[in-house]
Amino acid sequence: MSKGRKVIYPGTFDPITNGHLDILRRAATLFDEVTVAVVAGGAKTPIFALPERIELITKVVNTLKFPAKIKVEAFTGLLTTYARKKGVKTVIRGLRALSDFEYEFQMALMNRHLQRDFETVFLMPDEKYVYLSSSMVREVARLHGDLGTFLPKAVLSAVEAKFRR
Amino acid sequence: MSKGRKVIYPGTFDPITNGHLDILRRAATLFDEVTVAVVAGGAKTPIFALPERIELITKVVNTLKFPAKIKVEAFTGLLTTYARKKGVKTVIRGLRALSDFEYEFQMALMNRHLQRDFETVFLMPDEKYVYLSSSMVREVARLHGDLGTFLPKAVLSAVEAKFRR
Amino acid sequence: MSKGRKVIYPGTFDPITNGHLDILRRAATLFDEVTVAVVAGGAKTPIFALPERIELITKVVNTLKFPAKIKVEAFTGLLTTYARKKGVKTVIRGLRALSDFEYEFQMALMNRHLQRDFETVFLMPDEKYVYLSSSMVREVARLHGDLGTFLPKAVLSAVEAKFRR
Amino acid sequence: MSKGRKVIYPGTFDPITNGHLDILRRAATLFDEVTVAVVAGGAKTPIFALPERIELITKVVNTLKFPAKIKVEAFTGLLTTYARKKGVKTVIRGLRALSDFEYEFQMALMNRHLQRDFETVFLMPDEKYVYLSSSMVREVARLHGDLGTFLPKAVLSAVEAKFRR
Amino acid sequence: MSKGRKVIYPGTFDPITNGHLDILRRAATLFDEVTVAVVAGGAKTPIFALPERIELITKVVNTLKFPAKIKVEAFTGLLTTYARKKGVKTVIRGLRALSDFEYEFQMALMNRHLQRDFETVFLMPDEKYVYLSSSMVREVARLHGDLGTFLPKAVLSAVEAKFRR
Amino acid sequence: MSKGRKVIYPGTFDPITNGHLDILRRAATLFDEVTVAVVAGGAKTPIFALPERIELITKVVNTLKFPAKIKVEAFTGLLTTYARKKGVKTVIRGLRALSDFEYEFQMALMNRHLQRDFETVFLMPDEKYVYLSSSMVREVARLHGDLGTFLPKAVLSAVEAKFRR
Repeated sequence: MSKGRKVIYPGTFDPITNGHLDILRRAATLFDEVTVAVVAGGAKTPIFALPERIELITKVVNTLKFPAKIKVEAFTGLLTTYARKKGVKTVIRGLRALSDFEYEFQMALMNRHLQRDFETVFLMPDEKYVYLSSSMVREVARLHGDLGTFLPKAVLSAVEAKFRR
Repeated sequence: MSKGRKVIYPGTFDPITNGHLDILRRAATLFDEVTVAVVAGGAKTPIFALPERIELITKVVNTLKFPAKIKVEAFTGLLTTYARKKGVKTVIRGLRALSDFEYEFQMALMNRHLQRDFETVFLMPDEKYVYLSSSMVREVARLHGDLGTFLPKAVLSAVEAKFRR
Repeated sequence: MSKGRKVIYPGTFDPITNGHLDILRRAATLFDEVTVAVVAGGAKTPIFALPERIELITKVVNTLKFPAKIKVEAFTGLLTTYARKKGVKTVIRGLRALSDFEYEFQMALMNRHLQRDFETVFLMPDEKYVYLSSSMVREVARLHGDLGTFLPKAVLSAVEAKFRR
Repeated sequence: MSKGRKVIYPGTFDPITNGHLDILRRAATLFDEVTVAVVAGGAKTPIFALPERIELITKVVNTLKFPAKIKVEAFTGLLTTYARKKGVKTVIRGLRALSDFEYEFQMALMNRHLQRDFETVFLMPDEKYVYLSSSMVREVARLHGDLGTFLPKAVLSAVEAKFRR
Repeated sequence: MSKGRKVIYPGTFDPITNGHLDILRRAATLFDEVTVAVVAGGAKTPIFALPERIELITKVVNTLKFPAKIKVEAFTGLLTTYARKKGVKTVIRGLRALSDFEYEFQMALMNRHLQRDFETVFLMPDEKYVYLSSSMVREVARLHGDLGTFLPKAVLSAVEAKFRR
Repeated sequence: MSKGRKVIYPGTFDPITNGHLDILRRAATLFDEVTVAVVAGGAKTPIFALPERIELITKVVNTLKFPAKIKVEAFTGLLTTYARKKGVKTVIRGLRALSDFEYEFQMALMNRHLQRDFETVFLMPDEKYVYLSSSMVREVARLHGDLGTFLPKAVLSAVEAKFRR
């Protein structure tokens, strides 16, 4: 029997970037099981529909060293409710630039209010991803810029197919 | 005869939170009359219509220690124009996290440019509200999370009625 | 023969403010040719259409000390691609408040990834424009506030005509 | 009979600058009595000894519109203890750049812990003083730079006498 | 044989505060062994000598739920070297206010450069400690302020003994 | 005859790091002459005496692509006075993390007050140096950490010689 330390890595992942992957790798080194929890809904129109995002993440995860430790799931509703149902109390968040810091603090404190023993663990990505934001990735993708440095291969092809002229 | 020191506490209050109430209480301790000035219009669709917001604020204000010192009004147009018509030159703003700080500085400087003797007084809420943002409250409300810590009772009921499944 | 140092000053300029003009003046002092590159498209509905913005900038530039050094152009697509086609490797950005700082860092790093020898030169506007943001200018314009301190004369007239009651 | 609203404006004031004066003027407009409370001790060696600082502040205050509303005093020990003895519960702080913001938040929260009904009121100086720091003033003074824009006349003479070659 | 996930929680702990304790509790929930690593030397004169600090931490740790999971040690030299000798690759840091954020990022990146697989895990203390800084605690202690909210009992007595008039 | 665009890159350079070199390279690409202006005095005890620092910078500059464009000089007193004597009006500053941003803004504004047409040009170092601070380099050097990634070779040897056990 293995208790195992389980964590959730939630996000929109529209699309998953090398920055996300970097955090995922670190989380999988520190903990026994990491569930990538993909937010299903959301106010804005995503570039990739939820099933596409899950497919892309799954592909990319299979290229990692620890695929067996990583699960990919969709979730809706409150993160704390979702986590409680899974019996997980720890969430992983990448901490990059300053605006992240503040938003993440707000969210972590709100989650603690919603569930007292909920813990947020912040990891820092490699410095080359410290200023990488998903919205900038989407903007550059729309303008057909080369995102080879920032996206895993499978994601890069999918993005290029999406924005082909 | 005492003219009394009058101030305006402007905002969208969609809905009023315990953080707003905390600032309101502090303002009412420091000054003789506080007008809660509720912005009527706005680009985004509010959760509560203006009359609902005013009704909720009025209910909540009546539970405070100083209801006689506090007025609730709607306003449209420029804050400085509205204030000048009322003969008030001081506005109260709660100062919470970092992003507030910058936006509030911008707005306070703009208001001074629009009216030279206009003063913005910043108060700090209780530390338990320092990271509370209205947008996060609305997000949690939409997902049916428990907001008991963050909202006055009357507001909590109204929010729950609004988002009932 | 002197090739001269050429730079690009990109932006939406919806509309051009005294803060932009301040940066433009500084850039024209430091370099031999400054192209004001106006972003044609964009997700949001601008107040002024692209030809109007270019016309306003051109008018305003003609009131400056160095009109011959300054060109005004529209551009679409990636800034780095546009700059490469023009044979320019340096971009000017005004650095004002904190949120700028972070966004500008992100963009400058992304641009360097897209083109290795691309350089971003940050200039600081006069302190009276340090907290001036275009979105706040638009908001005050909508509410018919007096923007005389923040907008060049020609722009002020155009804004007032646009928002006339 | 109305006692009037009393506040304390504490600081080292080594020396008092135009930025301090700007805040003092605003405080004296908003409240009935402002006590400039000069911290006597301190870890670092000040440029001006405590009696010199008090003398300079007194001189400068006498040039203001409201000299009768402003008192100048030295204090030692905890600010909250000093304020309680005077029967004052409100302290004024100028809020300038970002580092201020954080330090001021820390101090305001600590003071609230030390005395529950203690209130800190933050005022924003004129934008030309937003980036003015006392340590930079002292540094420039040491290097014989012209501080005419930043210091009241009497202070300027005293600083120049202090650093005369 | 126990693999166990081991982490180090380094610091000066001069003295250990409730904020430190809060982080320690969270770390001991997430990991199997936490070594509180107390920096021996340092440029500044500490209030408590190293053996005193270790004694205080040990006392306080014994009041926690997980004393068996927590060790207290002194260390000198580079944190990464110390960690490598212990066979530990993960360090815990509390993340509070903004200035922390930046310093912690610098240190975490430096540590990664010094040792490639070194990981820094950031935890957020309870919101009531978000603005608590050790230097402010020392300052208030020097001025005989009541630190009951911020210090564990044993530490409070030691601090009061140290600063007795 | 070529007027040439001349700039000053001022600092303590105790010691010069790869981050400084990165900025120097960018400045030498943008402008015709860069004077590295080494602050002679300073409140704190430097690791390297002024002549040592100048010698190290000179060595390192000779390994660059543009040694002829770069001069190394000591200076004392006010930067603006020194620059005026040289007939230079532009200063280069590297802009890294957040605390830099604020301090640099303060200094740039102060310098503009001291001399109206003085311009500060901010450049951003390569992202791998964005969180590199001189004080952290000195700290790691004191603890005999490997600084090979952060220091030019000649500087690395000098630092190791200085801190040899």
